[in-house]
Amino acid sequence: MLDLGRKILASQPFSVFLDAELTGLSPGNAELAIPIRPEFGQQHGFVHGGIISYAADNALTFAGGSVLGTAVVTSEFKINYLRPAKGDTLIVRASVVHHGKRQAVCRCDVFVLVSGNETPCAAAQGTIVRLSSPR
Amino acid sequence: MLDLGRKILASQPFSVFLDAELTGLSPGNAELAIPIRPEFGQQHGFVHGGIISYAADNALTFAGGSVLGTAVVTSEFKINYLRPAKGDTLIVRASVVHHGKRQAVCRCDVFVLVSGNETPCAAAQGTIVRLSSPR
Amino acid sequence: MLDLGRKILASQPFSVFLDAELTGLSPGNAELAIPIRPEFGQQHGFVHGGIISYAADNALTFAGGSVLGTAVVTSEFKINYLRPAKGDTLIVRASVVHHGKRQAVCRCDVFVLVSGNETPCAAAQGTIVRLSSPR
Amino acid sequence: MLDLGRKILASQPFSVFLDAELTGLSPGNAELAIPIRPEFGQQHGFVHGGIISYAADNALTFAGGSVLGTAVVTSEFKINYLRPAKGDTLIVRASVVHHGKRQAVCRCDVFVLVSGNETPCAAAQGTIVRLSSPR
Repeated sequence: MLDLGRKILASQPFSVFLDAELTGLSPGNAELAIPIRPEFGQQHGFVHGGIISYAADNALTFAGGSVLGTAVVTSEFKINYLRPAKGDTLIVRASVVHHGKRQAVCRCDVFVLVSGNETPCAAAQGTIVRLSSPR
Repeated sequence: MLDLGRKILASQPFSVFLDAELTGLSPGNAELAIPIRPEFGQQHGFVHGGIISYAADNALTFAGGSVLGTAVVTSEFKINYLRPAKGDTLIVRASVVHHGKRQAVCRCDVFVLVSGNETPCAAAQGTIVRLSSPR
Repeated sequence: MLDLGRKILASQPFSVFLDAELTGLSPGNAELAIPIRPEFGQQHGFVHGGIISYAADNALTFAGGSVLGTAVVTSEFKINYLRPAKGDTLIVRASVVHHGKRQAVCRCDVFVLVSGNETPCAAAQGTIVRLSSPR
Repeated sequence: MLDLGRKILASQPFSVFLDAELTGLSPGNAELAIPIRPEFGQQHGFVHGGIISYAADNALTFAGGSVLGTAVVTSEFKINYLRPAKGDTLIVRASVVHHGKRQAVCRCDVFVLVSGNETPCAAAQGTIVRLSSPR
């Protein structure tokens, strides 16, 4: 399943552009890692919220896809930023809270890895839906 | 105010990296435009949700900052994707719904510009907070 | 359409229990009013957030139903409380941001009416979905 | 801490009106139970979303209050309804994801108890803030 997930991630130009890596994928769970680059910052020297929300969105999609199949998109999500992120790598762990045939409600936690220690920087929750037909 | 806003946007490495442009800023309102590049796609050929959520997050921050001052961050937001985005430019218009001294609740609408026509692709709502001290 | 809406509201025991009234319903828009009673308070003397969230949820559903048909439910929503509510009546105005055949994304604003003046007390955004079959 | 929490719940007229009971409260965690009454229904015979959102909102507030002190309110939250709720009792378990001095980000899961079995019916996430001064 992880191999298939990595092929899908590699087919997302934006994820390739940001060097995102799928580090885990099993039924109901997904983990993404994104090495932090200087160009990911905001004006105060921390990681821009936009890349954290990208990471959350994408991890939610992969978690949802792990139970719904590959033809899925994020329909909506909400994110709370917990504290400013600064460090080496963003790590997002997403899991399915509940799912039917058509949609999955998922949560994720975003951490920043600094010198081997993880600190939480965001928490998100959203809905992933199956595409009804090829787009 | 627009000039100051543009300086702040120019000091965000991630916004420079994505070529985001601040096209409007007045008390209570902000508008961002992001020319769509091939590297912003997802696997189905549409704009990746992650860049739409970046755009929404940042426009919300600028709208909040227009009434709270420059030292602000997005504390949380939620976004609904309305339909797949494909086109030339993402345009986000954000406005303040209500604010006090410390925080502002803002909304924004994201459009994709295709051959001169705007179609809505996402709607977001969130909280912008003033940083209590220099970081 | 308003008459049909009122019949539906009258068939919701919880809405009857709270004396909610549907004061407007047209394609894409809904308005609810709830006279504030002493038993709706929280510990600081203001209206409990729970009744504000009920009002927002229900107004979103009616707005969605105005374009999707009567067999709808709220799938998810988010609400920001803007300031403590104290007054005579809660008024919620909801409108459809975008809809397809199966779901509608809607927003609403909640006001409290005090001596004839409305002040905003909450803002919400959510997804209304059509039930696929009779339940 | 549970005794203090119960006093606070008993001072909320809306919670008394709905017969909500605080069944657990410890640093970082809160549990509410609400016996389901016929007047809590919606038009399809299930529990109205509005009472589920009340329960989620209030459980989030108690979880936040367990680490921030008693003078707290819910600032915002989002809720996903997972499936229609029918049964004997609503049970909500909330926990703190992260907190500072002024605010806490919390999550909760709502279950419906039917013949001794719990099934999940909603999931929520939100922000609880400390009131800066007596209101």
